[in-house]
Amino acid sequence: MTSRLLLLGAGRSASSLIQYLLRHAPTERWFLTVADVNPAHLVPVLAAHTEYARAIPVDLANDALLEELVAQADVVISMLPAMLHPVVARACVRHGRHLATASYVGPEIRELHGEALAAGVTLLMECGLDPGLDHMSAMRAIAHIRARGGRITSFKSYCGGLLAPAAEGDNPWKYKFTWNPRNVVLAGQSTAKFLENGHLRFIPYQQLFCRTETLTVPDYGEFEGYANRDSLSYRAPYGLEEIPTMLRGTLRRPGYSAAWHALVRLGLTDDGVNLDNPETMTWAELVEAYLPTSLIPHLDLSQRVATYLGLNPVGDEIGLLNWLGLFSDKRVGHAHATPAQLLERLLAEKWQLQPHDHDLIVMQHLFEYELNGTTHRLTSSLAVEGDDATHTGMAKTVGLPLGMAVRRLVRGEVAAHGVVIPVLPELYEPILDELAAEYGIRFSEE
Amino acid sequence: MTSRLLLLGAGRSASSLIQYLLRHAPTERWFLTVADVNPAHLVPVLAAHTEYARAIPVDLANDALLEELVAQADVVISMLPAMLHPVVARACVRHGRHLATASYVGPEIRELHGEALAAGVTLLMECGLDPGLDHMSAMRAIAHIRARGGRITSFKSYCGGLLAPAAEGDNPWKYKFTWNPRNVVLAGQSTAKFLENGHLRFIPYQQLFCRTETLTVPDYGEFEGYANRDSLSYRAPYGLEEIPTMLRGTLRRPGYSAAWHALVRLGLTDDGVNLDNPETMTWAELVEAYLPTSLIPHLDLSQRVATYLGLNPVGDEIGLLNWLGLFSDKRVGHAHATPAQLLERLLAEKWQLQPHDHDLIVMQHLFEYELNGTTHRLTSSLAVEGDDATHTGMAKTVGLPLGMAVRRLVRGEVAAHGVVIPVLPELYEPILDELAAEYGIRFSEE
Repeated sequence: MTSRLLLLGAGRSASSLIQYLLRHAPTERWFLTVADVNPAHLVPVLAAHTEYARAIPVDLANDALLEELVAQADVVISMLPAMLHPVVARACVRHGRHLATASYVGPEIRELHGEALAAGVTLLMECGLDPGLDHMSAMRAIAHIRARGGRITSFKSYCGGLLAPAAEGDNPWKYKFTWNPRNVVLAGQSTAKFLENGHLRFIPYQQLFCRTETLTVPDYGEFEGYANRDSLSYRAPYGLEEIPTMLRGTLRRPGYSAAWHALVRLGLTDDGVNLDNPETMTWAELVEAYLPTSLIPHLDLSQRVATYLGLNPVGDEIGLLNWLGLFSDKRVGHAHATPAQLLERLLAEKWQLQPHDHDLIVMQHLFEYELNGTTHRLTSSLAVEGDDATHTGMAKTVGLPLGMAVRRLVRGEVAAHGVVIPVLPELYEPILDELAAEYGIRFSEE
Repeated sequence: MTSRLLLLGAGRSASSLIQYLLRHAPTERWFLTVADVNPAHLVPVLAAHTEYARAIPVDLANDALLEELVAQADVVISMLPAMLHPVVARACVRHGRHLATASYVGPEIRELHGEALAAGVTLLMECGLDPGLDHMSAMRAIAHIRARGGRITSFKSYCGGLLAPAAEGDNPWKYKFTWNPRNVVLAGQSTAKFLENGHLRFIPYQQLFCRTETLTVPDYGEFEGYANRDSLSYRAPYGLEEIPTMLRGTLRRPGYSAAWHALVRLGLTDDGVNLDNPETMTWAELVEAYLPTSLIPHLDLSQRVATYLGLNPVGDEIGLLNWLGLFSDKRVGHAHATPAQLLERLLAEKWQLQPHDHDLIVMQHLFEYELNGTTHRLTSSLAVEGDDATHTGMAKTVGLPLGMAVRRLVRGEVAAHGVVIPVLPELYEPILDELAAEYGIRFSEE
């Protein structure tokens, strides 16, 4: 019997997921419906697969239509923005359909656990890269350590969506957007919390980017990691309630964080104020507006920024700001904006991924554990480069684990109902094996 | 004919307003209904005035009851929290009743302008201290300068709710709560914007409290002012669209801002994160959690905080933090809280106004204007001490202007309809005169 798969949302990041689903549709006996606001770009993708796949245009504000689509499917996959998932998940529970997404379990999804459980429905969340592959790989390593009788005392886990070395080129930030630019600009705007030697530790936003840790990833060199907002909430799902040290963080290339810290201190990442600026304001004028007038006026703008922030006027941070055009006569181009909106606009231009650029996904878990009275370390690293501008490292590492999870779900190999994340061996073992065997996506351990 | 006045909300800050309304009720032929959630405290206040005043308990969540009360009144005065004003204002417009409040004109109130105008209703907002008395006194000064042919080139206006010198005692912050503590803790959490010599200027939150200006107020000595969020939006209502320099700010005693800046940098004013802390956590443990572990461990906590923030370990800032008990074994007393919630809880205790304490309201306008080819300065200052713990400086300077505005409104002396703020001479002239003549509340000019 054919299983009807419904994929909601088919943006750029769904490319590898769609490829995976099409690859397995004939043998797994799937019929795939891809519902997207504007599915025109899917016509060539689906052209050779019309027997078992179709694309339909869908107005996602139309709840009745969404409801009907869900009712007609056996399993629903959503690549829609996370805020739309509660509506989708409620429809899935009502119609008894399983759901798979790469998004975090939010409060509204969590509330559906009991109902989904009662309905025998699996709401499989956090099945992409981060969250997703991080859970899977961490849980496998944790299970291995435990099976040998080890007690985990420290677990730090970092992930970053970056650039393959060749794509870094002469961009001194060594960074371009491979994911939601707005999220990058607003990253960390709260207080990060984690555990260190049994003590709660906090880093407020204004200190976050100057309190980084340096990591080395085989074949790719050094990275720096800053702490994510919440490193505590995964203790329970990982079964690490008593762990003394636990931190989750985000990776950048060395130098990025210090320069970003300068942007934070200048005030350019604030998204809470309308600056009432004209569209014609230049970046130099904008930066000038943030400086106290008491600074020595005959100095260059970049020198005054350095003086104000206590930076070396010919150092790396000022160099990175200068490369962005912060001291230039370039117009901000957007009236009545927040600083964060203007910065995002500038970065979207300077950090635009070019057609020939390959991205790079880096993930590293650092464990410390006690076994037979001695302390051991285990470092587990993953680096995945994109194949091309369509099948980026991001698209592959988000889409493939999700596709593989869907495959297990359709086959009835996921016994757990309710809200589920991939910390279960029945999910992470076959997915990690398939990623390694079929796609060469594997963690190296040392 | 008797006019029916409805006062919604009678918290502590309404004391002087109620006294004013009772004083004039017999001669002005008012009947005053005070509607409050819990009006028990009003019984003794109204005991001698039952012929023309009553208090009634009101569940303000009951919109139908609110509607009925508004329908039965001629003029409505609201001292409710600002967020409740749109509901009240809409009821006033529906029933053709004038409204007076001391709150800012928010977007929802602004939207009612057309409807109120059509209904012949006056929605008189911003009629307290700040906003309120600031508009009135500024507009009188601006009108005087203009009448002489002057052109205003700079207008800075500061206000603060502080302590009478005797009440400052040995509190090194020279500050206690005389107004909403939460607003004090969250003050400035955006980017301040103002105008300086024709240029937009911005100060982000993380720099706000280290970029203050020092002011001197006759008889009261020095204060320091930090910029308010938005100094630009009053250009239009003041008729100062072309002014090169305009800044509105908040006053504190010298030393407060530098120590508050340390709290901001530590991260203790963030209200966006649940710290997952236990109730039993001590303040020393909380502060410790914000410090990098790399700091020299044998130093005292206060010395490590000083090192971390680059402060003198025996300087004023650390002294002020120590006085709050930040380095002590005092428990934070509230589990799963935000840093701002914990700080507010601590400050509510340390900065509690005592029954014998008198508060102090300080306001200062600094004008520069050109007249006959030369630049002139005009400084206009107000200092109002509280009479006692009930008739505080805050209660007087908020309540009396509001009561006086209501008096004009009931008399039909306010011709303007729609959303109105007291920048009109028909309002500010009689109110400023009455404040000076009857209450000795007057600005000194130099």
